[in-house]
Amino acid sequence: MRKALAIDVGGTKVYSTLVNEKGEIVSDVEKFSTPKTFDEICSLFKEIIEKHEREVDVVAFATCGAVNNSNDGILGSTGNIAEDYPKMDFASLSKKKVFVENDANSAAWAEHIIGASKGMAYSIMLTLGTGVGGGIILDNKLYKGKNGAAGEMHFKMRRNKHRKCTCGSYDCFESYASGTGLKLTAREMLNDMSVTSYDVIAGMKNGDEKMIKVFSRWQDDILTGLIGLADIFDPDVIVLSGSMAQFVDTDYLTEQVNKEIVTTPTKVVKAQAGNYSGMIGAALLALGVER
Amino acid sequence: MRKALAIDVGGTKVYSTLVNEKGEIVSDVEKFSTPKTFDEICSLFKEIIEKHEREVDVVAFATCGAVNNSNDGILGSTGNIAEDYPKMDFASLSKKKVFVENDANSAAWAEHIIGASKGMAYSIMLTLGTGVGGGIILDNKLYKGKNGAAGEMHFKMRRNKHRKCTCGSYDCFESYASGTGLKLTAREMLNDMSVTSYDVIAGMKNGDEKMIKVFSRWQDDILTGLIGLADIFDPDVIVLSGSMAQFVDTDYLTEQVNKEIVTTPTKVVKAQAGNYSGMIGAALLALGVER
Repeated sequence: MRKALAIDVGGTKVYSTLVNEKGEIVSDVEKFSTPKTFDEICSLFKEIIEKHEREVDVVAFATCGAVNNSNDGILGSTGNIAEDYPKMDFASLSKKKVFVENDANSAAWAEHIIGASKGMAYSIMLTLGTGVGGGIILDNKLYKGKNGAAGEMHFKMRRNKHRKCTCGSYDCFESYASGTGLKLTAREMLNDMSVTSYDVIAGMKNGDEKMIKVFSRWQDDILTGLIGLADIFDPDVIVLSGSMAQFVDTDYLTEQVNKEIVTTPTKVVKAQAGNYSGMIGAALLALGVER
Repeated sequence: MRKALAIDVGGTKVYSTLVNEKGEIVSDVEKFSTPKTFDEICSLFKEIIEKHEREVDVVAFATCGAVNNSNDGILGSTGNIAEDYPKMDFASLSKKKVFVENDANSAAWAEHIIGASKGMAYSIMLTLGTGVGGGIILDNKLYKGKNGAAGEMHFKMRRNKHRKCTCGSYDCFESYASGTGLKLTAREMLNDMSVTSYDVIAGMKNGDEKMIKVFSRWQDDILTGLIGLADIFDPDVIVLSGSMAQFVDTDYLTEQVNKEIVTTPTKVVKAQAGNYSGMIGAALLALGVER
C-alpha cells in the first residue's frame, strides 16, 4: 500500500510519522521542539526526510500558515514561527515529491475521508485550540480560494473594537471562540486577571456557577459563529476539533444553530480523526485520496 | 442565437423580458405587481409564458427565496410573498424547459459572465437593498451548498441580541448593511424615530455632519462584513449591487478590507450588469452559459 511521510509543523512542536492511503498511522510518531531559526527548521526537516524518504511515495507537510494553490509554498506570514519560514523551498527537501498543505485544511480532509464528516460533501471544520483554525470542504473538494488562503475564521463578533486579535484586527471569531478567548471572556466577566481557561473548565466541571456562566458565554460565542457559517455555506455538518472542542455540548449547538439559521438543517459534531488528523489529512491529500 | 424568457419574481414586482445567450435584453421589459395569492401568481406566470414561450428555448425564473439544487423548486419560506409560493410547480408552467434560481444568485452569475466579476473565478456578490442578498461564485461555479440555500448573509454583527432581523434572529449582517439597517442605525444614533434612509443619503450629500456620521457607521458595518467574507473565501472580488450600493465608497472599502484581512488582497467594486441582472443571470444559467 502507498504511504506518505507526514510532517506536522506548528509554532511549538514538529511531529512526523508514516501514514498509508487508508489514513492509518503505520509507524511511531516522532516529536521535536520547533527550532527557532529558519536554518535549524530546514535542518530538522532534512534529517527527518533523509531518515524516511526511501520508505514512502511522497512527503506530506501539514503546516501552520496559509499554503498556495500549487501546494509547494507558504503564503505570507505565519505568526509564531521563524519569520522567514515562508521562504522554505519544500520541493528541494526531498528526492521524492513534496506536498504541502495548511494544518487545519489537512485536518478537515482527514475528517472528510476517515472522520466525522465522512460521506458528507459539504463540511466546515473548526479547530478550537490556542487559536482557531478553519478548513472548508465543498462538493467533496478542499476549498482554498483564489490564492490558497481561504478558511480564515476572522469574521467579526462585535462592531466596536473591543478585543484585539492575534491577527492585528479586533473582535475576530478566533479571539472569542479559542481557548485564549475563553480566558479573556473569563477575565472580563469575573474582573480577575489571574483566571485561566483551565480554571473555567475545572470550575464548570465542579458545578461552580460563575464558571458555568463564563463557559456558557464562550460556548454561545462559538454558536454565534456557527450560525453565520451555516447561513453562508448550507453545509451538511460543522466539525469541531482541537483541544477545546472536547468541552462543548454539540447537541446544544446543533439544536440552537438549527433554530436560528435560514438555510437548511445542519449538524454540529466533534472530530473523530484523532490528534494526528493534520498529518493524516496531509498524507491523504498528498496521496490523492478523495471521495 | 438561443434565448430565454426571463421572469424576475420579487415580493412587490414581477418583471419579464427576453434575454439572449450573450446576456443581452432583446425585448421590452414588462412589469407587473406581484399578486397576493398563490393562484393569482400562477395565473400571471402562465399568462407571461403563454405569450412568449414559442419565441424562446427555455423559461428562466429569478425568484425570491432559496431554490433547490435541481433548479425546479423553492426551499422553505420566502418572506413577503404568498405563503404557499414555495409549492409552485414551475415545470408545469410551460411546454419548454423551466429553470429556476434565486434572484441574488442569478444576479451574481450575470456579474460573473458580463459584469463586474467577469474573468474572475472567485467572487462574492452582495445586493444591498431593503434587505441583503448574497451570491457566491467559486472556481467559476455558482455555490449553492448541500440543498441550494447557501449565500444567506445572516452572520452576526453583535453578540447580545440588540437588533431584530427579518429572519427572526438578531443582529444579522442584513439588519445592519441593508437600507433598512441604515434607517435603524440613523434612528439609534440620532434618537429620532422619524428619520429615513433617504434623509441620511440626502443629508450626507448636503454635507450634514450628523448624517455623514450615520452614513459612515453604516458603511463601516458593511466593511465589517466584507472583512469576514474575504477572510473566509479569499475571493478575487466582492461585488456590491442593489439600490444602496450606489452610495458606498468602494475605494475606501477596498483599502480598509485589505488592511484588515489575513488572506490575500481582494477588491470591492460596484455591480455593472444593470438593474435587470437577476433576469440576465437566470437566463444565462438556464441557457448553460459558463466561463
